[in-house]
Amino acid sequence: MILLTIEEKAAKLGYSITEPPEETLGNFVAVRRSGNRLYTAGFGAIIDGKPLYQGRVGREVSLEEAAEAARITAALLLRALRAEIGDLSKIKLVKVLGFVNSSEDFFDQPLVINGASDFFVEVLGENGKHARSSVGVYALPMNIPVEIELIAEIIE
Amino acid sequence: MILLTIEEKAAKLGYSITEPPEETLGNFVAVRRSGNRLYTAGFGAIIDGKPLYQGRVGREVSLEEAAEAARITAALLLRALRAEIGDLSKIKLVKVLGFVNSSEDFFDQPLVINGASDFFVEVLGENGKHARSSVGVYALPMNIPVEIELIAEIIE
Amino acid sequence: MILLTIEEKAAKLGYSITEPPEETLGNFVAVRRSGNRLYTAGFGAIIDGKPLYQGRVGREVSLEEAAEAARITAALLLRALRAEIGDLSKIKLVKVLGFVNSSEDFFDQPLVINGASDFFVEVLGENGKHARSSVGVYALPMNIPVEIELIAEIIE
Repeated sequence: MILLTIEEKAAKLGYSITEPPEETLGNFVAVRRSGNRLYTAGFGAIIDGKPLYQGRVGREVSLEEAAEAARITAALLLRALRAEIGDLSKIKLVKVLGFVNSSEDFFDQPLVINGASDFFVEVLGENGKHARSSVGVYALPMNIPVEIELIAEIIE
Repeated sequence: MILLTIEEKAAKLGYSITEPPEETLGNFVAVRRSGNRLYTAGFGAIIDGKPLYQGRVGREVSLEEAAEAARITAALLLRALRAEIGDLSKIKLVKVLGFVNSSEDFFDQPLVINGASDFFVEVLGENGKHARSSVGVYALPMNIPVEIELIAEIIE
Repeated sequence: MILLTIEEKAAKLGYSITEPPEETLGNFVAVRRSGNRLYTAGFGAIIDGKPLYQGRVGREVSLEEAAEAARITAALLLRALRAEIGDLSKIKLVKVLGFVNSSEDFFDQPLVINGASDFFVEVLGENGKHARSSVGVYALPMNIPVEIELIAEIIE
């Protein structure tokens, strides 16, 4: 079998990561490089400026929907890294921080953010592994259910 | 026109960043250096140990007041970086993480943190650009409306 | 007096940091190395898969219990760093980010996270100093009261 590229692996999972990223929601950049590390902004599942889901996980948004939002967010993050660096095979993930807009009695933030982590590992393999924190916050921009930021390393 | 220094640009916007920083609220340091990167503690708009604003944004604190708190916090962050490194012209911002003490139905965290981002870019120019996340939290120390931390790079 | 090792200092404070760390709660690793920096996952006071405390600080969990949870979390973080790098005397802490599962009127997040910061400084000395942020979140995985992540530097 001929090996799939990273872009093709993402496509096989249903997401195109070859488009340019959308504009950010404020006076900041999507990705900032410092030495051989890339720091991303916080991303959400927002397409053409519109959130795919809105509300708290455990109330208006189900666990399954939130995990899907996390997966889409992961694809958007890879798209932004690709736009910055060109070749995703030179990227190693380091740290993921996931914020879940949670209802008071929702304690499965890790299952939500697994939607992103699974995607990263499926698409990037060993380079997709990362340390991670998941926390439940009280409100997110545009009332999105999930916001994720990450740090990646450019392999030299 | 003779170019303003970074300190003078901050002064023109109304903030003095040449004073030494205040003591931290716990057993930690305001800025920690690692290689050529500077990691700050979380800062708030606290002057002489007193918060300028207290409460949730969208309830006790307005968007405008919160954006001002973010701007003041940005000035305090630059003051702390300056105290650490001396010459702010050698600083490049990398990442900003903004926590907004939010009411349940407040979703404009990015507009609040723009108060800081705009200040950074006005004062530092290209070096002030940064990736950024904004999230809405449930409570902050001393009931301040905004807490911001950042990572900067020392340009070599 | 013969100097205690880092492991013995931790033991003197009541915590063994020589055991291997527990499994993470999702598809991620406990510690990820990037260059000479170590990024940890978010940790909580969870032993054998069971949280020592559950609930919000200021409601079900007292300040004292939360500070103890933070101290135990700090010990678990050192254990994870030790498992990764072997020799903790080569570790310098850089940044600590503490999330406190807070009641609406609890504003002493820094006193909670001091439980971790004090431990780090007592055990690691000068190398244990760090920049720090403390914020109050709305929910945490398994309803734990405190989650902490950190960045450390490997001294070369």
